[in-house]
Amino acid sequence: MKKIINDVEDVLTESLNGFALSHSDILKVNLNPNFITRAKKSKAGKVSLISGGGSGHEPLHGGFVGFGMLDAACPGQIFTSPTPDQMIAASEAVDNGGGILFIVKNYSGDLMNFEMASEMLGMENMTVLVNDDVAVEDSTYTTGRRGVAGTMIVEKVIGSAAEAGASLAQCKELGDHTNKMIASMGIAFTSCTVPAAGKPTFEIAHDEMEIGVGIHGEPGRKREKAKRADEIARDLVDTILEDLKPDNNAEVLLHINGFGGTPLMELYLLFNSAANELEKYKVKIGRSLVGNYTTSLEMAGASITICTLDDTILKHWDSPVHTAALRWGM
Amino acid sequence: MKKIINDVEDVLTESLNGFALSHSDILKVNLNPNFITRAKKSKAGKVSLISGGGSGHEPLHGGFVGFGMLDAACPGQIFTSPTPDQMIAASEAVDNGGGILFIVKNYSGDLMNFEMASEMLGMENMTVLVNDDVAVEDSTYTTGRRGVAGTMIVEKVIGSAAEAGASLAQCKELGDHTNKMIASMGIAFTSCTVPAAGKPTFEIAHDEMEIGVGIHGEPGRKREKAKRADEIARDLVDTILEDLKPDNNAEVLLHINGFGGTPLMELYLLFNSAANELEKYKVKIGRSLVGNYTTSLEMAGASITICTLDDTILKHWDSPVHTAALRWGM
Repeated sequence: MKKIINDVEDVLTESLNGFALSHSDILKVNLNPNFITRAKKSKAGKVSLISGGGSGHEPLHGGFVGFGMLDAACPGQIFTSPTPDQMIAASEAVDNGGGILFIVKNYSGDLMNFEMASEMLGMENMTVLVNDDVAVEDSTYTTGRRGVAGTMIVEKVIGSAAEAGASLAQCKELGDHTNKMIASMGIAFTSCTVPAAGKPTFEIAHDEMEIGVGIHGEPGRKREKAKRADEIARDLVDTILEDLKPDNNAEVLLHINGFGGTPLMELYLLFNSAANELEKYKVKIGRSLVGNYTTSLEMAGASITICTLDDTILKHWDSPVHTAALRWGM
Repeated sequence: MKKIINDVEDVLTESLNGFALSHSDILKVNLNPNFITRAKKSKAGKVSLISGGGSGHEPLHGGFVGFGMLDAACPGQIFTSPTPDQMIAASEAVDNGGGILFIVKNYSGDLMNFEMASEMLGMENMTVLVNDDVAVEDSTYTTGRRGVAGTMIVEKVIGSAAEAGASLAQCKELGDHTNKMIASMGIAFTSCTVPAAGKPTFEIAHDEMEIGVGIHGEPGRKREKAKRADEIARDLVDTILEDLKPDNNAEVLLHINGFGGTPLMELYLLFNSAANELEKYKVKIGRSLVGNYTTSLEMAGASITICTLDDTILKHWDSPVHTAALRWGM
């Protein structure tokens, strides 16, 4: 294992320290319990949005803390759920009096811990569960579909609504609605290595790919011979559209997400293949996002996320945002 | 070789197509000859900034085309210089009557081709040569120091000045000045694979690192056992500061650049280590940038770039920019 780290047990803390130092205009990091908040508190009465999950998926979620998106993020150890004490401390730190909305990727550990925090929390709160991964119905760490790269879109959309004054119930409803408009699926060529494990999470042959891989390297639908980009795009887009069933001439956000070890050149090439595939369905690309947003450490591979755009989602996607990983309009 | 590609000979074209499709609000791509321009022409009289180089370093340079940075970028084949016909066609496409400034990373092939274009071009033009890599004096593809991740800073600073109405001579002078204020050095844990070659550019043992590696995987200073993040940061920062010789309490831009295959978590951890090292020198971090900006396909590793900030550089760094890879203030 070769990694830019010191001692394995300090990886998360030292990485969070660097994150805080390099974005001190946007955010602050609290250690023990670990949580990330905005540098400036939001306005009174605003619903506070909190997400979190295992580390190793950066920039998710800490990179989305800031104006127009999250109020706080709770990073667990690598590929490990954060704990209720983190969620409670984060909630208390960012409470504006408008209630707390948890945005949770559907993994059993995350869900259990956020539910525990929700019950223990002495303030009004609701939860939006994201389950955009159409690859498998149940998985290693999940009952029901997994939450993956579409989570960031849910965070952006609710983040904008909360900033504009939406109530807790309205934010929850918009989050649930947005989640239903999103479907994702990914492939991997290589595994990744969790520092504490010291060896690759899974083995894969030099000429094989995992189709429908999870963002922790957990198995997807099947193992096949590595395919061409156009075939990968067809497999993923077809499966996604079977789920989304967009109308003819529907407008979508097409997000190509790199898992961490795939060059940007290839992500743009996959965008091109996916765009060709969408054209066959007469689906129009209204917005685009290409890059490493929901990663699995250094795993080579990528996922395709498609979000059907309605006027509400489009308005909230386009609104100003100022976070470490997503910034426009300000 | 497992990559998200179709046929090897179509990688660049298909990637450029995806790039154009996904950023149609910012840029346009011309094929044969290949060059990228802004979607909207700049205002009359503005100096036109053009950069370019081999592909495989994305988002450099195409990701920096847009308001506040480049007017055009000329992508060569992977790790191969673009040709004079690309530079001339790009110049003619983006000419605003204010003259052309070429921003060139110091590699023999790039320099030769940009010089040829400069001589053949029927309009006023100048060149800023970037050579920020302090690892080696001469290298595989270079006489003199290589141009690496600092190039993007030069492009941002001149880009801002050109937008504000600086003349060709002023842009050239500011570019040369900024280049002198920047020093970079990197390390690699793995090689990368150029699709047309089909095998890794170099071999490296499972426990070794290349110190001072170039952005094409070319050799640096030495091959050593893989070190801890703090030692890597010390080696790189010390060498960089020996070159830059900043004053006590100088303010710098600290840029941690990933080569493509290293997780963001590790880049932030390296930022933390580099910040600790800078503190020993009483050097203050005024601005920060962490991420994959000047890559070598999927090479695992990172570089540190430090730019000493004066009022002029700071002003131009902070000014609004709207490109695919760098965006703020708008």
